[in-house]
Amino acid sequence: MKVVMIGAGNLACNLGVALKRAGHEIVWVYSRTGTSAKYLADLVQCLFTTDITQLPTDADLYVYALKDDVLPDIVKQVIAPQAIHVHTAGSVPMAVLAANKVRYGVLYPLQTFSKQRLADFHSIPLFVEASDAVTLDVLLSVARQLSRRVYEADTCQRKQLHLAAVFACNFVNCMYSNAERIVQRAGIPFDVLLPLIDETAAKVHYLTPAEAQTGPAVRCDRTVMDRHVADLEDGMQRNVYRLLSEDIYVYNNLSNKNHS
Amino acid sequence: MKVVMIGAGNLACNLGVALKRAGHEIVWVYSRTGTSAKYLADLVQCLFTTDITQLPTDADLYVYALKDDVLPDIVKQVIAPQAIHVHTAGSVPMAVLAANKVRYGVLYPLQTFSKQRLADFHSIPLFVEASDAVTLDVLLSVARQLSRRVYEADTCQRKQLHLAAVFACNFVNCMYSNAERIVQRAGIPFDVLLPLIDETAAKVHYLTPAEAQTGPAVRCDRTVMDRHVADLEDGMQRNVYRLLSEDIYVYNNLSNKNHS
Repeated sequence: MKVVMIGAGNLACNLGVALKRAGHEIVWVYSRTGTSAKYLADLVQCLFTTDITQLPTDADLYVYALKDDVLPDIVKQVIAPQAIHVHTAGSVPMAVLAANKVRYGVLYPLQTFSKQRLADFHSIPLFVEASDAVTLDVLLSVARQLSRRVYEADTCQRKQLHLAAVFACNFVNCMYSNAERIVQRAGIPFDVLLPLIDETAAKVHYLTPAEAQTGPAVRCDRTVMDRHVADLEDGMQRNVYRLLSEDIYVYNNLSNKNHS
Repeated sequence: MKVVMIGAGNLACNLGVALKRAGHEIVWVYSRTGTSAKYLADLVQCLFTTDITQLPTDADLYVYALKDDVLPDIVKQVIAPQAIHVHTAGSVPMAVLAANKVRYGVLYPLQTFSKQRLADFHSIPLFVEASDAVTLDVLLSVARQLSRRVYEADTCQRKQLHLAAVFACNFVNCMYSNAERIVQRAGIPFDVLLPLIDETAAKVHYLTPAEAQTGPAVRCDRTVMDRHVADLEDGMQRNVYRLLSEDIYVYNNLSNKNHS
């Protein structure tokens, strides 16, 4: 298929390269900023523009990988009635494309992307939604060229996936950041925590998070928890410590009751 | 060295096996519960007891891998004046061993352990503290037989390491647990999140957590955050979402200011 990439951020770069590797031709890249547009255009060897009205109207697939709030406005400016238009955003309803498009859908990869490190798409779960059965078939087959793990998900499920991703990625990274600040204050480099971080992620491949939970909160060890809160120098860290300990305590007590 | 293992939980099993593999002889295992004591004794092929007074007095090294609150009481009951006594607890001062021991110290492995999955000790950071220079040398050399990553750390640093581990392991797992509940409510299995979980951990091997931070909070995307809070069905999850978003927002704004 002839593909136009609209957006040239982390996700666009990773998806653009994956589409090209799967045999599709990326014909144009649009981005508001010239350097971003050129970066992706160089990666996939195609033309680029910062003027949305310059995009060709005869491509087969238009991929919108943009920030949620600019998506509706940009979508309106792209005219290509015969093509399939897909966005890639977890939190945005498919209906954002319904206004002036005939065939449209969503291709949502559940992953965190960086330009510096191009992802192997084959293991990334892709969630597909489409305006109609024929378009769904096309998008599913494109998705299956990119990944072994393709699922259908409606707008409502995708919203929940995106929410879960905030917890499993953004908030997890926030915990890494807090841990870094604590060891650095003690004069210890962050990298001593990496084996623990890796093993914590590895554990939930074969245990449920409830089974994998360890630490003072799940043991209801008040003595250690009180000492920990007293030892934290940062007020925000004390609040986070208290709230997440309560979360662990309450949830694990509930789930143990349900299992007994 | 002839080693007595006092405690037979997750950490004791992993450390006992690692010590045996490094060429030491585990001579006895003590645990309050017979099945636990037998489990570790079978792993390292030695005798076991649930009666602390039965332990031999002529071993070289006594390793206390016990819950924090029972440690002081058990320590008092072990009589072996010529031996080295070490505990393995992050939050407990070395001084807990000073009451009736001459040579003592701490060997703290920064890792989360399961009996079901014996860890490769070679990559686990080990933090050592000792009562005197001669004992320190012995403990450092034992630690270096077990791991490539051996550090000295005093009681104060070890306390901070343990606190950091609560954030990097226990609270991270709590985030996995919340993500699991969110996708399950949408009828989607937890394992779709595993590639994201793995990549989030992999990223902080080559980026700092601040550089790796993504998501609506670091972008200050109020629209998405408000929608997310509204979409969360669980009150505790709404509180966690708000607090951690504030943490990400405040910290990343501070660190960007410091860098500019």
